Amino acid sequence: MSEANNRQILLVEKPTGRLGPEHFRMVNGSIPEPKEGEALLRLRYLSLDAANRAWMHGATYRAAVEANTVMSGGGIAEVVASKASGLAPGDIVFGDTGWQDYAAVQAKHLTKMPKLEPMTHLLSVYGIAGLTAYFGLLHVGKPKEGETVVVSAAAGSVGSIVGQIAKIKSCRVVGIAGGKDKCHWLTNELGFDAAVDYKDGGTYKALRSAAPDGIDVYFDNVGGDILEACLPQMNNRGRIACCGAISQYDGVPSAHGPRGVPGLIVVKRLIMQGFIVMDFMDQRDAALADLQSWVASGKLKVQEDVIDGLENAPAALIGLLAGENRGKRMIRVQA
Amino acid sequence: MSEANNRQILLVEKPTGRLGPEHFRMVNGSIPEPKEGEALLRLRYLSLDAANRAWMHGATYRAAVEANTVMSGGGIAEVVASKASGLAPGDIVFGDTGWQDYAAVQAKHLTKMPKLEPMTHLLSVYGIAGLTAYFGLLHVGKPKEGETVVVSAAAGSVGSIVGQIAKIKSCRVVGIAGGKDKCHWLTNELGFDAAVDYKDGGTYKALRSAAPDGIDVYFDNVGGDILEACLPQMNNRGRIACCGAISQYDGVPSAHGPRGVPGLIVVKRLIMQGFIVMDFMDQRDAALADLQSWVASGKLKVQEDVIDGLENAPAALIGLLAGENRGKRMIRVQA
Repeated sequence: MSEANNRQILLVEKPTGRLGPEHFRMVNGSIPEPKEGEALLRLRYLSLDAANRAWMHGATYRAAVEANTVMSGGGIAEVVASKASGLAPGDIVFGDTGWQDYAAVQAKHLTKMPKLEPMTHLLSVYGIAGLTAYFGLLHVGKPKEGETVVVSAAAGSVGSIVGQIAKIKSCRVVGIAGGKDKCHWLTNELGFDAAVDYKDGGTYKALRSAAPDGIDVYFDNVGGDILEACLPQMNNRGRIACCGAISQYDGVPSAHGPRGVPGLIVVKRLIMQGFIVMDFMDQRDAALADLQSWVASGKLKVQEDVIDGLENAPAALIGLLAGENRGKRMIRVQA
Repeated sequence: MSEANNRQILLVEKPTGRLGPEHFRMVNGSIPEPKEGEALLRLRYLSLDAANRAWMHGATYRAAVEANTVMSGGGIAEVVASKASGLAPGDIVFGDTGWQDYAAVQAKHLTKMPKLEPMTHLLSVYGIAGLTAYFGLLHVGKPKEGETVVVSAAAGSVGSIVGQIAKIKSCRVVGIAGGKDKCHWLTNELGFDAAVDYKDGGTYKALRSAAPDGIDVYFDNVGGDILEACLPQMNNRGRIACCGAISQYDGVPSAHGPRGVPGLIVVKRLIMQGFIVMDFMDQRDAALADLQSWVASGKLKVQEDVIDGLENAPAALIGLLAGENRGKRMIRVQA
């Protein structure tokens, strides 16, 4: 690519139904000049997340993405010029760079990252995905040794780590994923005790067989029908860590929530708790230390799904929403 | 009434739709002989609760009530004979006596009550209703000074106490109730800051006006549409104390839950927590001390709705489910 060019992918229209390639357009912009307090970044790896789609519905924990602007998204980038104290050329940072080669971003919105190899781990196990799994499971779900933990979207970036941490904490772990291959991978490669293929139908019964003692912690990435199937199988004083609702993101959100809310929450004394990883960032160092030790000892396997080329980001996100990926999906923008 | 007689109200059939008088029948039974470990009780006051109806749907936190047995229900009773250590004739106890004049109940299922006047307070402010309000609000909802607390079924036995405790804790308090009279009573007599009449339509907008800064704690007694109206108005890190779902009890339970679950739970980092007062009974003495001091100082007004005659229990429960009562409804069986 030409250094003088800044390829940018715009969200040209917010989808009312399913997200498609027609909602994006690539343009050539100019490389911005960093203003006072900003750093000019060259994007290395762009994170793809189900949440990218949720942002199109309106304001969430962040402002909505708007049509005809550069699509928002987090990425790992290298500082190429800086007008901010504390950041120098060559530094590696994480931030909302958007889908483009270069971005000028305020330093206060950037997190300086350690230089480690492979750099992709900064977006997977040591990034939002890994920390979301860590804090959501341990600080929200709070599983005890011997309890049954169920996680949905179990082959995804967060779910695959949730299940492995739950195994490290001596829980019985059941993953819910789409397709035989993913389920096989969960049990044979990642050490899950059982896996339920939700595309196979009969999720409720399959879950009953896979979790015969009921569910103590349900780490919910999907919402919808799978949450509804889990609710009646929760044990008394069970905890549901509400991490996302990927089943609701792509298309028109459901007009209804899951049956059993709030009736089952009352009689089973359940806690359903939403969380956002940013709320736990004051405890990031301790979490990273745990994650690094588990990766080093081989207890935690890191699965990444790296796709080359910024131009492939729209198709890669659309595919992620359809459940194509295994582990953390990202775009290699520039190696 | 004849001392030799034990009037009993049977649940002759479990309703599939709305509860009606045809589901009950009064019979004359005999006064039971207490077995070893049991006390023979003469019922004084019978508690009527929305939960009585929920028990007919199946097992909850207790076994389901069964057709052609004496209807279950809690009451305040006097010990008339005892084959249990620790209980003597004249003692006053609370327990699941069922809807009858006399019951033989195992002592381990009875709670000895203090002798205070009026005795009805043992079923209202110092009974399950008051303790449910106390623990649910303070230990589950955890309101902070200045926060906005919304409570539904606000004119009911629990809700009317929840709102008053929230005022004692310096919160802004909004009650949701059915009808102008109840709403007027909440604001003019009980000191609520605002009340929303859900029978007036437009609950969402009325709530927005009544709670312009959003909702920090929602104490949910009703579930259904009102829960759905509250969810989008919750502030970040808000807490929903799930106490009951009276809107779902009488008739066929809804096939769906409230829209926004789990999406809004995630983005707003909400906690929805179900609870049962029995789980807090180890802290009962401290709670009663607080409640007694508030009643003594006039900060907490006690509203009771006492109906005479065991034979009126079916109609009184049916009316409670329709929202007839203000404050704690109970039956005076024998003064």
